[in-house]
Amino acid sequence: MEVEAVAQELATAVHGENWTRLLAILAEVDDLRRAAAVLSWDQQTYMPPGGAQARADQLATLERLAHQRLSQPEVGELLERLAEETTALDPESPPARLLAVARREYQRATKVPPALVEELARVSSLALNVWAEAKAEADFSRFRPHLERLVALQVEKADALGHGGQRYDALLDLFEPGLPTAEVERLFGRLKEGLIPLVQAISQQLDRVSDAVLRQPYPEDQQWAFTLEVLEAMGFDWRRGRQDRSAHPFTTSFAPDDVRITTRFQPNYLGSGLFASIHEGGHALYEQGVPRAWRRTPLAEGASLGIHESQSRLWENVVGRSRPFWQHFFPRLQRRFPDQLGRVDLETFYRAINRVEPSPIRVEADEVTYNLHIFLRFELEQELVAGRLAVADLPEAWNERMQAYLGIRPAHDGEGVLQDVHWASGLFGYFPTYTLGNVLSVQFYQQALEEHPGLPEEIASGQLGGLLAWLRERIHQYGACYEPAELVRRVTGRALDPEPYLSYIRAKYGEIYDL
Amino acid sequence: MEVEAVAQELATAVHGENWTRLLAILAEVDDLRRAAAVLSWDQQTYMPPGGAQARADQLATLERLAHQRLSQPEVGELLERLAEETTALDPESPPARLLAVARREYQRATKVPPALVEELARVSSLALNVWAEAKAEADFSRFRPHLERLVALQVEKADALGHGGQRYDALLDLFEPGLPTAEVERLFGRLKEGLIPLVQAISQQLDRVSDAVLRQPYPEDQQWAFTLEVLEAMGFDWRRGRQDRSAHPFTTSFAPDDVRITTRFQPNYLGSGLFASIHEGGHALYEQGVPRAWRRTPLAEGASLGIHESQSRLWENVVGRSRPFWQHFFPRLQRRFPDQLGRVDLETFYRAINRVEPSPIRVEADEVTYNLHIFLRFELEQELVAGRLAVADLPEAWNERMQAYLGIRPAHDGEGVLQDVHWASGLFGYFPTYTLGNVLSVQFYQQALEEHPGLPEEIASGQLGGLLAWLRERIHQYGACYEPAELVRRVTGRALDPEPYLSYIRAKYGEIYDL
Repeated sequence: MEVEAVAQELATAVHGENWTRLLAILAEVDDLRRAAAVLSWDQQTYMPPGGAQARADQLATLERLAHQRLSQPEVGELLERLAEETTALDPESPPARLLAVARREYQRATKVPPALVEELARVSSLALNVWAEAKAEADFSRFRPHLERLVALQVEKADALGHGGQRYDALLDLFEPGLPTAEVERLFGRLKEGLIPLVQAISQQLDRVSDAVLRQPYPEDQQWAFTLEVLEAMGFDWRRGRQDRSAHPFTTSFAPDDVRITTRFQPNYLGSGLFASIHEGGHALYEQGVPRAWRRTPLAEGASLGIHESQSRLWENVVGRSRPFWQHFFPRLQRRFPDQLGRVDLETFYRAINRVEPSPIRVEADEVTYNLHIFLRFELEQELVAGRLAVADLPEAWNERMQAYLGIRPAHDGEGVLQDVHWASGLFGYFPTYTLGNVLSVQFYQQALEEHPGLPEEIASGQLGGLLAWLRERIHQYGACYEPAELVRRVTGRALDPEPYLSYIRAKYGEIYDL
Repeated sequence: MEVEAVAQELATAVHGENWTRLLAILAEVDDLRRAAAVLSWDQQTYMPPGGAQARADQLATLERLAHQRLSQPEVGELLERLAEETTALDPESPPARLLAVARREYQRATKVPPALVEELARVSSLALNVWAEAKAEADFSRFRPHLERLVALQVEKADALGHGGQRYDALLDLFEPGLPTAEVERLFGRLKEGLIPLVQAISQQLDRVSDAVLRQPYPEDQQWAFTLEVLEAMGFDWRRGRQDRSAHPFTTSFAPDDVRITTRFQPNYLGSGLFASIHEGGHALYEQGVPRAWRRTPLAEGASLGIHESQSRLWENVVGRSRPFWQHFFPRLQRRFPDQLGRVDLETFYRAINRVEPSPIRVEADEVTYNLHIFLRFELEQELVAGRLAVADLPEAWNERMQAYLGIRPAHDGEGVLQDVHWASGLFGYFPTYTLGNVLSVQFYQQALEEHPGLPEEIASGQLGGLLAWLRERIHQYGACYEPAELVRRVTGRALDPEPYLSYIRAKYGEIYDL
């Protein structure tokens, strides 16, 4: 179906007083949430440290009002009346799905008391600043009371949302609708079978690949300029977005026409900022591709975090760490950094950006070990919310599991348990979506390749528009219209499947490491 | 009274259910407005052009909700009950004044219908972007329909607020509480008597002073660095604020602990960015000096725009264009720009930054002609809202009055009627506060000088802390506690008085131009 047609299908179905009123309330909720996103973006990019307390209050008020508006009884009544009015609609049509998504959000909102919503926003906004300082000082004890409070609030929230005994189900569903914890456990089990032996095999011959060429002084202004060049080629629309710097790269959307990404650079390591920008650029293309006509409805965003991550990972890894991509871009990169890369050949560079090495930091991890970082977090946060692990014991549990999965131990908590922003932001149940994204990135790309076998040649000539058009048509234009499982089925004709991912990893790294 | 004591006086007087509830509502309103301020700051500093429509919707929702919360009947009931509870309070004490200010805001809010508030926010947010493009293209016709709509909405708003026949009174009172239009007319009449002959006299001998030393290439990064140096010396607290760039410099406060200023540079003219930063820095010191304990109440801001402008003008002109200030800073400026200023003497520089010349642009105008720009705007906007002048005839009316007051005619509307952001932002009745600020800046500084005759020597040695401490103690710490007239009386022992300003201007420019 054409992009315009999908978007229009909503407009034509929607008329009458009940629709008008529901859409007005949803628009108000969306405005409040997007305003909060602006405040949060500013907090992470430009806000002076003194602003933290006021910002926490402001975010709490915005979250509370959004929650209040969404959970007002009128919304429930409107949804009931519209359900009766729309029985003739195809349940997978955009207007029917809009009602379904609005109902899901309404039910979630009415289950969580307003005071708890506000407290979650306030505590996490303050915790975010403490976390940043604690991380810089590698001092978990500063962050510990905040994390204890955050975990307690998550437990309260999960129980308010309701679950069938597995508390984690309620949290995971917020990010990956319709996916039970048990299914993640099965998926991760299969991935472990394939990945852990591979990591062990590679660990025996780490020195087959060097990334020394990436570890030289790279002036930040040139790194910045190159990220802009790559984002431009990917199709990032600068009239509808921008890139800034922050401690932890992220993407946020204030509307399909205003999508912000952030990145951060290391002066002596090229890989950090470059792949952060490509990764966030993948997220941003998704948000910029959501139909403008769905703006201010809950359909105007990604289908789930797993689907979102499939887009960022597809660009970062499947495309951005592939030979065809660098056939085009490596000569351009060499021109920017002639002293550093002028005498490096493409193959050396390709191997460098695909070097595998167990390391403590998730966001710096290679494709093969990355998922092991996720398995660890998935298990620890399950234990935290289940009450089987105390926050006080978390750093040691973290370090022990790092040893078990990756064979390494963080030098300090700054590169251990304090490394990620998620828990400080109140995000529990979020981490598994990264691995879902990895798995789906390959499943989607294989599908694109089946339909367009010429993609690698296009990419090798710097033409990334064909891939973007395919993603726009098959994924982006549907926004949050379908639940992830349904979207995956529509795009690939199959369910979520780890095998293409495992084959891709085995083939790629089998070749690089001569296994 | 000490800063802490004033702030505490509110806390100790405030207890009981009615106070708690009122303060909670006022805090919510403040959070919504400050959130809107963040969105507006982003719109003017970093937002990509595509974001305009969504930003307009978001701002409209925030303004509408703030208005809704403030105008709810419960606020009226609480104010009535608290008026009865607090009859024993000194009417000029902070808690009594908080009630008075809240009552004023409540009454304003209940008079303006919510739909009008939202429409004002939406129309001006969109108009702001059109204005920026129309100004760049010097094309008034693009902006005209927006301005017509803006004027119509201002008329509606003024009539809703109510007035005794003079519609402009209702708008002026929003920015300068308690000051009637007739009093501004008297004040401006007296200023015209003093200033117009002076401008004419100076116009006969413009070539006595040259600003050629300012009109050389000045690299922007060094201009930026010098503004930071000056702001630092003024006492701007970087942990509680920051400076960015925007098309039109402004100051906005998200809290006393997060105050943002913007500036903009001209590559071939030093005066533009430098004095914009000092000016906005003056505003920012005021906002950073408001008691933190009053945060999230309507007392936590400046007393009025006129008082605010007195602070910016005091720093920009009375201090920032004085000999003592540059005795300290000129050698520092020379070190940053040795090629441009190394062989320039202090007196040449002092005369350059105080050069008088009738010119079309208000924000670039010198101290003497500046107020003439204000007289013109004050008169035109009065006529617009009174219905005596059509928007279609505005450009010509503007140009004719420029000719009459300043003896010049703008080359195009970009440097004429389109030059200011105010009307596009929906700000009518705002302009006179600039001249009030000029007059008060001198009245306040004279008072400071009477109490601390050593100030010029301190300033000449780069010690600006004594002046800031005086401003903090006598003005900043009271926030919006007193109406402007009362504050002026408390600080200077007299009413607003144009004579110190006229004497200052005559003495300073009489010397420079040897009149």
